[in-house]
Amino acid sequence: MSNSYGTLFRITTFGESHGTGVGVVLDGCPAGLEVSVEEIQSALNRRRPGQSALTTPRNEADQVEILSGIFEGKTLGTPIALLVRNQDAASKDYSHLQHAFRPSHADYTYAAKYGHRDHRGGGRSSARETLARVAAGAIAAKLLAQKNIKVTAYVSQVGPIKLRKNYRQLNLAKIESNAVRCPDGKTAARMISLIEETRDKHDSVGGVISCVVQGVPVGLGEPVFDKLHAELGKAMLSINAVKGFDYGSGFEGVSMFGSQHNDIFYQDEAGNVQTRTNHSGGIQGGISNGQDIYLRVAFKPVATILQTQTSIDDQGNTIVLEGKGRHDPCVLPRAVPIVEAMAALVLADFMLRAEVSKL
Amino acid sequence: MSNSYGTLFRITTFGESHGTGVGVVLDGCPAGLEVSVEEIQSALNRRRPGQSALTTPRNEADQVEILSGIFEGKTLGTPIALLVRNQDAASKDYSHLQHAFRPSHADYTYAAKYGHRDHRGGGRSSARETLARVAAGAIAAKLLAQKNIKVTAYVSQVGPIKLRKNYRQLNLAKIESNAVRCPDGKTAARMISLIEETRDKHDSVGGVISCVVQGVPVGLGEPVFDKLHAELGKAMLSINAVKGFDYGSGFEGVSMFGSQHNDIFYQDEAGNVQTRTNHSGGIQGGISNGQDIYLRVAFKPVATILQTQTSIDDQGNTIVLEGKGRHDPCVLPRAVPIVEAMAALVLADFMLRAEVSKL
Amino acid sequence: MSNSYGTLFRITTFGESHGTGVGVVLDGCPAGLEVSVEEIQSALNRRRPGQSALTTPRNEADQVEILSGIFEGKTLGTPIALLVRNQDAASKDYSHLQHAFRPSHADYTYAAKYGHRDHRGGGRSSARETLARVAAGAIAAKLLAQKNIKVTAYVSQVGPIKLRKNYRQLNLAKIESNAVRCPDGKTAARMISLIEETRDKHDSVGGVISCVVQGVPVGLGEPVFDKLHAELGKAMLSINAVKGFDYGSGFEGVSMFGSQHNDIFYQDEAGNVQTRTNHSGGIQGGISNGQDIYLRVAFKPVATILQTQTSIDDQGNTIVLEGKGRHDPCVLPRAVPIVEAMAALVLADFMLRAEVSKL
Amino acid sequence: MSNSYGTLFRITTFGESHGTGVGVVLDGCPAGLEVSVEEIQSALNRRRPGQSALTTPRNEADQVEILSGIFEGKTLGTPIALLVRNQDAASKDYSHLQHAFRPSHADYTYAAKYGHRDHRGGGRSSARETLARVAAGAIAAKLLAQKNIKVTAYVSQVGPIKLRKNYRQLNLAKIESNAVRCPDGKTAARMISLIEETRDKHDSVGGVISCVVQGVPVGLGEPVFDKLHAELGKAMLSINAVKGFDYGSGFEGVSMFGSQHNDIFYQDEAGNVQTRTNHSGGIQGGISNGQDIYLRVAFKPVATILQTQTSIDDQGNTIVLEGKGRHDPCVLPRAVPIVEAMAALVLADFMLRAEVSKL
Repeated sequence: MSNSYGTLFRITTFGESHGTGVGVVLDGCPAGLEVSVEEIQSALNRRRPGQSALTTPRNEADQVEILSGIFEGKTLGTPIALLVRNQDAASKDYSHLQHAFRPSHADYTYAAKYGHRDHRGGGRSSARETLARVAAGAIAAKLLAQKNIKVTAYVSQVGPIKLRKNYRQLNLAKIESNAVRCPDGKTAARMISLIEETRDKHDSVGGVISCVVQGVPVGLGEPVFDKLHAELGKAMLSINAVKGFDYGSGFEGVSMFGSQHNDIFYQDEAGNVQTRTNHSGGIQGGISNGQDIYLRVAFKPVATILQTQTSIDDQGNTIVLEGKGRHDPCVLPRAVPIVEAMAALVLADFMLRAEVSKL
Repeated sequence: MSNSYGTLFRITTFGESHGTGVGVVLDGCPAGLEVSVEEIQSALNRRRPGQSALTTPRNEADQVEILSGIFEGKTLGTPIALLVRNQDAASKDYSHLQHAFRPSHADYTYAAKYGHRDHRGGGRSSARETLARVAAGAIAAKLLAQKNIKVTAYVSQVGPIKLRKNYRQLNLAKIESNAVRCPDGKTAARMISLIEETRDKHDSVGGVISCVVQGVPVGLGEPVFDKLHAELGKAMLSINAVKGFDYGSGFEGVSMFGSQHNDIFYQDEAGNVQTRTNHSGGIQGGISNGQDIYLRVAFKPVATILQTQTSIDDQGNTIVLEGKGRHDPCVLPRAVPIVEAMAALVLADFMLRAEVSKL
Repeated sequence: MSNSYGTLFRITTFGESHGTGVGVVLDGCPAGLEVSVEEIQSALNRRRPGQSALTTPRNEADQVEILSGIFEGKTLGTPIALLVRNQDAASKDYSHLQHAFRPSHADYTYAAKYGHRDHRGGGRSSARETLARVAAGAIAAKLLAQKNIKVTAYVSQVGPIKLRKNYRQLNLAKIESNAVRCPDGKTAARMISLIEETRDKHDSVGGVISCVVQGVPVGLGEPVFDKLHAELGKAMLSINAVKGFDYGSGFEGVSMFGSQHNDIFYQDEAGNVQTRTNHSGGIQGGISNGQDIYLRVAFKPVATILQTQTSIDDQGNTIVLEGKGRHDPCVLPRAVPIVEAMAALVLADFMLRAEVSKL
Repeated sequence: MSNSYGTLFRITTFGESHGTGVGVVLDGCPAGLEVSVEEIQSALNRRRPGQSALTTPRNEADQVEILSGIFEGKTLGTPIALLVRNQDAASKDYSHLQHAFRPSHADYTYAAKYGHRDHRGGGRSSARETLARVAAGAIAAKLLAQKNIKVTAYVSQVGPIKLRKNYRQLNLAKIESNAVRCPDGKTAARMISLIEETRDKHDSVGGVISCVVQGVPVGLGEPVFDKLHAELGKAMLSINAVKGFDYGSGFEGVSMFGSQHNDIFYQDEAGNVQTRTNHSGGIQGGISNGQDIYLRVAFKPVATILQTQTSIDDQGNTIVLEGKGRHDPCVLPRAVPIVEAMAALVLADFMLRAEVSKL
């Protein structure tokens, strides 16, 4: 029951990394939205392995097929099912992983929880599951575009290398101009160097993705438990390898005084309510206030490293695991579209929920 | 639809800060759990205003009444309804707030979303709503105690004053030994001084609450969207004034390499699976691995300050707001039981959900 | 988790028949709806015991209190909590029921399911729970009235006495003109006689309530699982003592041929789509088509009779139960407002859900 | 949001009748259940068109593919996705239906609700969607078999021809011995004659399916809204063409007196609680009492007939529709496995829900 997300705009994902395929059913998308298979494929291509020298050289096409819900280029209001078949899964030998618990992977916890598990790679715990989110997120983004809401994410930290500028000081159009998806060229170059060094040491490194949502109307988000930022937090924390989330002034804001932190309201010349500062990160009382929403997502260094590690097997015996295979030394660049997809899914859901707030 | 939380152990809270009362319905608590009204009241007393010199001098008794679901000291398996009536709400004059949008409060967003709002104090957006969570959390804690699961929270930062020790270096039994609920006496004294200074300057200050969950069995948490830490994150982010959440190595862990961050498994002498380190924070693949869960919650300085501020009214006119009333300069000490309650509610829910994972 | 109903317009009821009280939290009612405590009380009065010679002489005032969600006569968009306190529950002696399983009551199944139960009367399984539904239903009816949707129920059968006319042949304004709530005077008189005879024999009798919903716009109801009639069916079947539900041509329609049963479309002079017949009962493919919705609900004779019956206790011993207390020989008249409330709750929910069907 | 059903054992179906395919995602099935593709296929074959002279001569193979959630013959605890591709959909000409509203179909209501629709056949409103239910129901039946719960359905009425015996007077092993799936040979022969006559008149006819669930343990079903029979009712009413549902004494029981209808408890020689009669239909207070559950489902004559009918198009113009194509004159025989599937899905869900009722 944990494979669905959203209240009115709701996705259910399925699929193991080395099974037949990975897919998603999106239920609740309003009828009449124009969506093409190319738009969904284009989003998947940004997440795809093998797209640059920084990512795993595995080269999977990840071709998406629309199974239902879209007819003559428009959504029907019925569930939209999308499927990406896995490739070559059967051809490899995974018998060395059948009884092993890899460090900081989910092998042990899945084995304990379910008894029976698919040991070929991560199975359901693999980040491959996130392609289902990106596919559905592409449709969410189309819905948001109808209201001029735009989600943009970028890499703002890799290991200790931190982008010191905030999103207003950056040219967000440059995010795709380099392999690490950091809009500041100089910082990007340093990040790329660190990732290459890490790859050459057969290690992995973590980082932070920043995300900004612009054009959000006032009134999205629900009070109390389903606060806009609480759902954004859950959505981000549900992405593989994520260890932290903050928004607006975030963890840094705790050192401020209220007199500094409060965002003073004023009315601009067009008659719109604005705030002088935006420490609130565009959300007050869990509801969007019309200012930009911005947030940060912390990713640990991924657990798969090409080094020899000791561990145990499912009988408690100590074993030695050789690092082999092909993996990303840093998942941050490929996680940018995942963060965008999750933000889009959350916003689309609240957009629909806001329709029934008042008479 | 945002006033419920949990899947199987599910609460629905209700009530405005200055209406008749605040309460909660807990649906899904198994039958046969011993719960007394005193236990619930005791939890509420830790959250109550007026309990120390650091908190608001408002002195509300917050007496809880059990309306249903408990019979002869044990839960019936039917919904447990709890009610705390508000006091004196009617006696004050709130007319100056009828049209005002206080800075960084939810006045503006509620007005925009709902049109009609209760302007007397925070209404539904008031932190007074959290007493309903604490009341239900006391029952969740009883359920956890059946399995020897224990949740403990404490203040680990106030403004820039940061407790440098982690929970294993602290004597958690000392949390209640001072008014700020920080288990380290020296740090507590500095935090108290800062809060007193802040109060005297009519300002407010933020901070961080740390929380540790001990005795968690392997297997709690659901893969993909309802990861244990994703729900903990949502639960914490739904508390008023929270701006950030991380767990395990968190935001600091992003600078580590995978070879440092990976938690190596071993089997201890009792035959239990353990990890040498616990950067994972007790959760792998969204599922508890039997190690301690630890997490941090960032609170902004609260918006209510006793200073003069400019703002606008609901017609867009600039207004001047005088600071008046009685408020907490720092909500952290009183938020400790709220953090504990939310963690307990999340764990109780996953405890039930884990019952149906396998044959 | 079974104490909530509805998706967007969602109620959660609580309370045992002989505990502190019975109540409901309604989450999801849009802000700005005018609702008075008198309107809710008025609905409760139609369900109240003691209102006529046909019902139990127990005379409970069932005074409702609004705990939250309504401010200055209008809904806030926040949860609406309503409470009716029980009277005199403590004063009676229920020790003879502590271990007894009354025939065709829920004593045995509750004991088996929960172990611990409130044996004083029906506890949670009592029809007293339905007053919470009627209270919430009064608010649903107000929401429907905004769109000119009107729900009307009446008693169409008591024991073998069956009203042979359909709703179009009746003057529905006469429903409240007699104690049995049957709009046909002659049939009503016969029903009343039968109920009085049944009461004098210390027995009980069942019957059928018919319900019609007029003014329904096209497009309410969701395809596949949440078909409009499927939810109406579940709602009705969740009422105590209900054994059956049909709508439109119903069970009788199974003997027809398709060429007779099909409702032929035409466009009326005002340009509206109409059907020549309405065997579909106003619903096609699970979605309202603008014609009247009509349905029937079957109630068994209630289990409580004032006769001596054998049964067993919780140790399996055979016992003899004396009929005592005061009970309705026929619940149908008092169930009319309950059927109306459930229909209104279902319609209100689908009214909100229909808001997000298309762009 | 209407394409999912179940709380813990939860299905989400997708697919249009003439799109790429129809499928289902089952989330919440416990890990470790043995399921083979042949078992699922076998269930689908009972629902398949073309299986006898009574059903449509359309001959679709309806081959199911397992996309996820089953590994080495056992469920993983992850979502189980099943897909059946449609055949030949593209090859036909549906242009005559593009603007037509067929009588008593969902063409008009879908058009009104969604604006945009797939006019090729029924689209999402087609009974072809039910194959997804049957596929998932096969897995539910396996889960029930672990606890020796068995669901059996059969045709008990076709048009006016009614089987006068109840399930205890029948040999249920004979259900599959004739094309109409009625276990009484003589009645079956009469039903078959009527269906053949109806087919030859290019008409359709309705009927009733009876269903019995044996081996149900005490305690399944949740009080108040999710009563076992209320969910069974909703599940059955969500099947295409269903107009009514009753269980136990049902609509006939309304004429009884309580003294006749009450089921007297006794303890049998094995120490089990039994009832002398079973008018309750195995459910008391919404919870199974260990006796057989039995219920009836009313199906209208299907709307598709091979006769000329008048109707209107989406501009309100009167049109003449020619009956053409190949359709079932009576869907009852093929609906038997659908009724069984829905019952199995409901029972499986409550089996899991019952796990968390008490400590």
